[in-house]
Amino acid sequence: MAANNSVVWHRRRVDIRVRGDQLALKRVQYNKFGFIFSVTMELQLDHVRDILRRTPSTLNLLLQDLPEAWLMTNEGPDTWSPYDVLGHLIHGEETDWIPRAKIILEHGESRAFTPFNREAMFEKSKGKSIAELLQTFAQMRAESLQQLDELNLTPELLEKRGLHPELGTVTLSQLLATWVVHDLGHIGQIARVMSKQYGKAVGPWKAYLPVLTR
Amino acid sequence: MAANNSVVWHRRRVDIRVRGDQLALKRVQYNKFGFIFSVTMELQLDHVRDILRRTPSTLNLLLQDLPEAWLMTNEGPDTWSPYDVLGHLIHGEETDWIPRAKIILEHGESRAFTPFNREAMFEKSKGKSIAELLQTFAQMRAESLQQLDELNLTPELLEKRGLHPELGTVTLSQLLATWVVHDLGHIGQIARVMSKQYGKAVGPWKAYLPVLTR
Repeated sequence: MAANNSVVWHRRRVDIRVRGDQLALKRVQYNKFGFIFSVTMELQLDHVRDILRRTPSTLNLLLQDLPEAWLMTNEGPDTWSPYDVLGHLIHGEETDWIPRAKIILEHGESRAFTPFNREAMFEKSKGKSIAELLQTFAQMRAESLQQLDELNLTPELLEKRGLHPELGTVTLSQLLATWVVHDLGHIGQIARVMSKQYGKAVGPWKAYLPVLTR
Repeated sequence: MAANNSVVWHRRRVDIRVRGDQLALKRVQYNKFGFIFSVTMELQLDHVRDILRRTPSTLNLLLQDLPEAWLMTNEGPDTWSPYDVLGHLIHGEETDWIPRAKIILEHGESRAFTPFNREAMFEKSKGKSIAELLQTFAQMRAESLQQLDELNLTPELLEKRGLHPELGTVTLSQLLATWVVHDLGHIGQIARVMSKQYGKAVGPWKAYLPVLTR
């Protein structure tokens, strides 16, 4: 009777429409009761470009001319300040996203990516002002997006496979989705790190501010 | 011998200097070994203004003209979409921050704040476009900052006490710090909610993207 206790989830592709416009393909899970369990979006190249394009200006707005105490303070040992995060994002433009996309397109799974040094910025950012880093990031991101366009990616190319040194087989589509999530994750991190500088100053309100204990 | 196993932490105020400029007063905890345990910043009114001023433009950059699928999707049952968060921030400008500051200044602890309805936006935002909400928020935030200036707050006034209906005694300084942390927390939340739309699309990279499982 064990089978009666398990729920079988099916998947299918559907079009999701919000206010009449088709916006993104999503996967919808459903069981025999027809209940939608979760939706997540499938990658669309125009959405990738749109979100990646916004990140330099968003970081400018959050960080430009901010007092350095807000820029240089982290969450504790082995954590990053907003300044560190920005350096990490620059290093990603240089060595991670477009270079890996090109390795997939040129070599497929026959050549593994060069491992990414997540902490290279501790050396590379040294002595640079936040304004310099913001400008460098904006310039490199613009170049990355230019190069992304020049790859002339098609749905078939997006499914092309590459070899991650630790994760194994990945697709170009997954690489681009990761680029977007990586940007958004670090924007969120910067906001969180900044918020913690007032972790004591909020007094009893700390109980209502989940960002302070994440 | 139990006393030998406990560490006594002392606190004192110090000036923190980054690259020679004094930036913010912080609290430093230390024990008999002189080890700095944690630092957090004390509230500075010019920092409060500076960070609060940036939020509407940051949200414009993140959300303006974004495909609606990214704006309207949340993290699951009883969670908020970026659209919901924006409505919540607008409601805070209307009923929370400056109104509560005025209650503290006018009534001290003799009158408790009106409880804040965290979910008022589900009704109030109905039928409004994201562009409308962004514009409303920018306008209301500008008015709030104008009113904040007109309160002519002094260090003494910042220590004035008010009565929170659930948390008890709070100070005006704590209210303003909470305003800042609340902004930053919701910016981080919007980035996190967006990132989760590609939670499946990233494939095996999910293991390296902590934002997807927060």
